[in-house]
Amino acid sequence: MAVTLEGKNKFVPPPDLGNKCPEDDVRRFITDCMKAVGVPQENALLMADILVEADKRGHYSHGLLRTEMYLADMLKKLCDPCATPTVLKENASTALVDGNNGLGPVVSKFCMDLAIKKARETGIGWICNRGSNHYGIAGVWAMKAAEEGMIGMSFTNTSSLVVPTRSVKPVLGTNPIALAAPAEGGNFVLDMATSVVAGGKVEKKVYEGKPLPENWSLDKEGNPTTDAKKGLEGFLLPLGGAEETSGYKGFGLGMMVEIFCGIMSGGTYGPNIRDWTKADRPADISHCFVAIDPSCFAPGFESRLGDLMNYCRNVQPVDPQKPVMVAGDPERINSEKMKADGGITYDMSLIEEMWKLAKYLGVKPLQSV
Amino acid sequence: MAVTLEGKNKFVPPPDLGNKCPEDDVRRFITDCMKAVGVPQENALLMADILVEADKRGHYSHGLLRTEMYLADMLKKLCDPCATPTVLKENASTALVDGNNGLGPVVSKFCMDLAIKKARETGIGWICNRGSNHYGIAGVWAMKAAEEGMIGMSFTNTSSLVVPTRSVKPVLGTNPIALAAPAEGGNFVLDMATSVVAGGKVEKKVYEGKPLPENWSLDKEGNPTTDAKKGLEGFLLPLGGAEETSGYKGFGLGMMVEIFCGIMSGGTYGPNIRDWTKADRPADISHCFVAIDPSCFAPGFESRLGDLMNYCRNVQPVDPQKPVMVAGDPERINSEKMKADGGITYDMSLIEEMWKLAKYLGVKPLQSV
Repeated sequence: MAVTLEGKNKFVPPPDLGNKCPEDDVRRFITDCMKAVGVPQENALLMADILVEADKRGHYSHGLLRTEMYLADMLKKLCDPCATPTVLKENASTALVDGNNGLGPVVSKFCMDLAIKKARETGIGWICNRGSNHYGIAGVWAMKAAEEGMIGMSFTNTSSLVVPTRSVKPVLGTNPIALAAPAEGGNFVLDMATSVVAGGKVEKKVYEGKPLPENWSLDKEGNPTTDAKKGLEGFLLPLGGAEETSGYKGFGLGMMVEIFCGIMSGGTYGPNIRDWTKADRPADISHCFVAIDPSCFAPGFESRLGDLMNYCRNVQPVDPQKPVMVAGDPERINSEKMKADGGITYDMSLIEEMWKLAKYLGVKPLQSV
Repeated sequence: MAVTLEGKNKFVPPPDLGNKCPEDDVRRFITDCMKAVGVPQENALLMADILVEADKRGHYSHGLLRTEMYLADMLKKLCDPCATPTVLKENASTALVDGNNGLGPVVSKFCMDLAIKKARETGIGWICNRGSNHYGIAGVWAMKAAEEGMIGMSFTNTSSLVVPTRSVKPVLGTNPIALAAPAEGGNFVLDMATSVVAGGKVEKKVYEGKPLPENWSLDKEGNPTTDAKKGLEGFLLPLGGAEETSGYKGFGLGMMVEIFCGIMSGGTYGPNIRDWTKADRPADISHCFVAIDPSCFAPGFESRLGDLMNYCRNVQPVDPQKPVMVAGDPERINSEKMKADGGITYDMSLIEEMWKLAKYLGVKPLQSV
């Protein structure tokens, strides 16, 4: 389902490319690609930061891999690389923002900065926007607030892929929920699709030639399937899976995200959002950003949260080889591994695609060993 | 696991009791019971309203059935029927409240009223409290905001019953999330435990003599079980079930609820909360209440939400006998059925228990036909 730029494939990558890339050069490469299609320096650097952060955290489906999708939208003039968001309506603690069809991360940074500012003044800031584009992993925006000592939340709507319980017609996207909160011993970072799994995980099973676990996907006729290819052509079940195991709760959470995004902002919502594999019109994605100042409540927030997280990490696991982890731990472990490795390791196929992309855009290829 | 008052069982109910009760008399009966143990009139009426609303919506585990649990805590002096909450800390959009060990619904009404007031002034009100008791169904508090044209949310922590992914030791309660929002054609009301199912659903399977669906429960040794009795003695899985089907997401949502409740308010949290079957000390439950004014965002909120909900209701179902429903629909259907029936129908065993309770407390028994 990856977006491919026409004409890129005439370039043939050399056979001796490596697949481990220094973090700084991945950032440089993405920045160069963005600038090559007209993204201003400041926005290009932001795009690079957001995508590299996703890779470091192990969410490869939202990192370097997505560069081409962003470029394709800009080359087709479906997204404006230079746009800056505007505030349409404002109250002490809230704002409605128009992203003016700018880059998702540009709109998101604007909105989360505003949420944090309002949280400093009134205890909480709640910002909804429309007119945006793909914003990367939901977690990074929530983490921006946590870095400032705040509780941060971020939500976004996305193209329809998830079926409501009892039907096989997709109505909602994988509509993620992210919540980050500062804690002693490492921040809490929940970053989850409201489907059983994100679409990228089904795609990964196809590449690996493995079957899907039960209760992930339906084929395009709406039958439950463990065939990864059929699942990829089909639809995702909401978190909880079947009706018997409360899949309607996951669908309800997806609706909650859509209420915070398209319904509150007045943007496109639910089944009206464009198919992300067919970029034929602006995406008009809506997001929602929240910052809450924990110092407005009981003192000692970070200590209590750290205590509860450590309690979870230390409860006896069923399998001693698989300790209990708290939201944010897998990503922290991944980031530390990348640092120790001295670079980010990618699939060779992505490295080759990025080499072709460099030639196509006329920018310096990604360094790899 | 029902709480029973000692000495109540010496009363033997007559054999000719009916099991359908006029709504107004259920309200009268609960009010009388509350007043019999020293609850002031105003608080007793509120308790009755909240419990009757749960029954009408079909959440019998949180209605008349719970009357005895509330009475037992008050008779043991573990909960103060006369307490009024106090604001400990306040900002333009936030407040920290001490429930002073008052009745859960009394504390909750105080907090949600304050959230709505702040939302009128600043666009949003976010209130956390500690020092409360069981607050009934989460949904009714969110609905209070929706009745005022606001988006309402309510969260509460509860006694530990839910295991983290990879362990068999319960750390969190069923920590519910409720969100209500005004919509044309009937409000959206999501009211869900963050476990696969609430504990009451396992209890119901025991009464019915039916097995549990897979992925609901673990036995007390931590093995997956479909034996309802073993499940009732054991623990609940978080929404999503096993690790393979993303149970860690449900656990992460339970953590989010605990962050909004015990962690933000400075109350008791996670595994430190008392076992609800052993009421040996005050519960010190924390809740969180949020009201958001949708008029601070794009005009037309109720119309857009109604449109999306109707779209969901009208998508083709797999089984024409089972149409797609949106959060709030099953409860609305149940309430309408109760109204058409001219009363609330209970299990005969509950009717008999309530007859004994009336005799024990010296109040007029519940009318039934």
